[in-house]
Amino acid sequence: MRIEILNTGTELLLGSTANTHGTWIGQQLVKWGLRVQRQMTVPDGVAIEEALREASNRCDVVIVTGGLGPTSDDITREATAKVLGVELIEDEAALRSLKDFFAKRSRVMADSNLKQAEVLVGSDVLPNKNGTAPGIYAPPRLGGEPTCGIFLLPGPPRELYPMFHDEVLPRLKALAGVENISQVKELKFVGIGESDFHESLDEALAQIADLEIGYCARLGEVDLRLIGTEESIAAGRQLADDNFGEFLVSDDGRNLETIVVHALTKAGKRLSTVESCTGGLIANRITDVAGSSEVFTHGFVTYSNAAKSQLIGVSEETLRVHGAVSEEVAHEMAAGALCESGADIAVSVTGIAGPGGGNEEKPVGTVCIGLATKAGVKTFKEIHPRNRLDFKRQVSQRALDLVRRELGV
Amino acid sequence: MRIEILNTGTELLLGSTANTHGTWIGQQLVKWGLRVQRQMTVPDGVAIEEALREASNRCDVVIVTGGLGPTSDDITREATAKVLGVELIEDEAALRSLKDFFAKRSRVMADSNLKQAEVLVGSDVLPNKNGTAPGIYAPPRLGGEPTCGIFLLPGPPRELYPMFHDEVLPRLKALAGVENISQVKELKFVGIGESDFHESLDEALAQIADLEIGYCARLGEVDLRLIGTEESIAAGRQLADDNFGEFLVSDDGRNLETIVVHALTKAGKRLSTVESCTGGLIANRITDVAGSSEVFTHGFVTYSNAAKSQLIGVSEETLRVHGAVSEEVAHEMAAGALCESGADIAVSVTGIAGPGGGNEEKPVGTVCIGLATKAGVKTFKEIHPRNRLDFKRQVSQRALDLVRRELGV
Repeated sequence: MRIEILNTGTELLLGSTANTHGTWIGQQLVKWGLRVQRQMTVPDGVAIEEALREASNRCDVVIVTGGLGPTSDDITREATAKVLGVELIEDEAALRSLKDFFAKRSRVMADSNLKQAEVLVGSDVLPNKNGTAPGIYAPPRLGGEPTCGIFLLPGPPRELYPMFHDEVLPRLKALAGVENISQVKELKFVGIGESDFHESLDEALAQIADLEIGYCARLGEVDLRLIGTEESIAAGRQLADDNFGEFLVSDDGRNLETIVVHALTKAGKRLSTVESCTGGLIANRITDVAGSSEVFTHGFVTYSNAAKSQLIGVSEETLRVHGAVSEEVAHEMAAGALCESGADIAVSVTGIAGPGGGNEEKPVGTVCIGLATKAGVKTFKEIHPRNRLDFKRQVSQRALDLVRRELGV
Repeated sequence: MRIEILNTGTELLLGSTANTHGTWIGQQLVKWGLRVQRQMTVPDGVAIEEALREASNRCDVVIVTGGLGPTSDDITREATAKVLGVELIEDEAALRSLKDFFAKRSRVMADSNLKQAEVLVGSDVLPNKNGTAPGIYAPPRLGGEPTCGIFLLPGPPRELYPMFHDEVLPRLKALAGVENISQVKELKFVGIGESDFHESLDEALAQIADLEIGYCARLGEVDLRLIGTEESIAAGRQLADDNFGEFLVSDDGRNLETIVVHALTKAGKRLSTVESCTGGLIANRITDVAGSSEVFTHGFVTYSNAAKSQLIGVSEETLRVHGAVSEEVAHEMAAGALCESGADIAVSVTGIAGPGGGNEEKPVGTVCIGLATKAGVKTFKEIHPRNRLDFKRQVSQRALDLVRRELGV
């Protein structure tokens, strides 16, 4: 079933409001194996008619959001009437519910609100629990042509979301028929890139029948999306697991920090962080996860040499001989944090985020990471030549991934 | 000038990634008095060609994002070549820069990356400072038809944003002609909301000739955008300053943390942070600013009571009598951090981020903030009933704003 979304609203194109409707509707549809084949945003006004006409000739269902309000630039109803060649009439039930809405709030209804009770002749009126404008569903061939169904939905999320669940989804499922419902699985990998998959797996994945794959790459991670039947998804997952299992972090949408906090909780272990170049980012990511207070108690941001010595006992000798960005200092930082916090695992990072501070031996992007447990301390030296914020993000990703591996998840 | 945006990426339509590009590009264009007339999102693959063909017949400039990666579903280059009827060739400079990118990171380049060096014959190659895929600009009539200019830009924001500023905006300005470019000033206010402006200033601002205003509200801050002539912008700014001067943080795009770090640097003062509920976010924001190492040396993330006592000397008595979320504890945290770090200003936060941990007396969203200087300690108690991440952000905003006010900027 070909579905398009048409979002209307000048503020969306000016960038003053983020278009969250497109994202949200996409998420709802995916859960039922339905897809959006195109999303469009047009300003309030005449552009709606042109875009709706095009979309209705291209697909089976158009979902329009916005433009059902009482002001002069709210013309979604009128535009749809023109596209379908049907009239608008005042709907008695809609008018009653509109009057009720204002009466309940002891507010006087403006005359301009009256047009919100107008619906397309022959359409379904979709009740609005949280606002004034009812939604409208024009079934296929309402005006003879086109053959697609058109939903008109209100813009405010608190009106749109319940109406979508109660009125739109059941009609979409009936239109699609059960046989068109597919499944989706997203696998998150940390520490490898999209091109690694392309090199090793794309061909083999393409040979699995009824499987569609997609990638979404972010700094230091990539999501592999598998869409198909239960069997084809299982086959795709097996292939990915066999090749890149050690990098596979989650198959249920959880991010790296959530995986780490959940694994710590399950193992009954506590983590401590001591950060120089990431400046608190690792601690911040950990504490983004609800429940992290059970497994994370002490975080240190030791941005200066003095802080490294004073707070976690890095020796001034080590700092002088090896420099702050060295595996030796990362070692003492992690060991010191483990001791000071009483945690089971401590991770340390010390590096050069730039733009200043680099030299030939240790260029901007150099980082040393330490990982301490009661069994001992491991250290790592890496180079991530990126801008300051990307460097911080990438280093936090590496540090959290080392903790994940230490926890064996 | 009619501009359309074409965002490509299956993940955008599945709702697994929010389409922030459309919003961001809209914001950039508005600053130059340019507008987007339509935005479209299509999945990776063949749909790109159809949508690009339509758009290129409708407008003067199409800005395409995404689909320049190395995998099989990245076909934006190929689709554009078909629409324009021109060939793709390997660009020597692009290939060199691609090889450099991998060499610098000591990584082996996969063969699949080679196609990222392919460009449209006769097009401008737009250098990518932060990734592998160069952008491409096909000027109007590159293949004879269509008459619109087409930009192909990489999807990852860290690659797209700098390329847009360095390569796209100058070309758009040249295409639009100077007479279409108005001036823009963005004023950033922290601690007041959009509705404060609507209530007090909208009418007065509307009476200034040749001035268009817009707002962009984010958590704990709002940008007032003034578009017009030098005179009308000055008049608008004066009005905003007269009414809300104390909340005005910057007029040059700098964010709150940058303002704070710059003010500390100028004053030759040092700041320390001690965070419970924000879990490192304040330190992280400060260290996002280049040069922060001169003014920020010690940060404490004291997520447990034990850490509060052990690291910065909060008395167990105070914790027991008043609870961790209290002005008394915030006071001792700030005073302790000031003493321990030797800084000139210390800011502390302790609160309940939720979803758990609240009670009737101290609901989720409660926070106590302490601000210590050699002159003494001030404390504040507030409630910000928001979800966990928004609460953390809002509290970090308040804490940084208190430091800003303390510094008198």
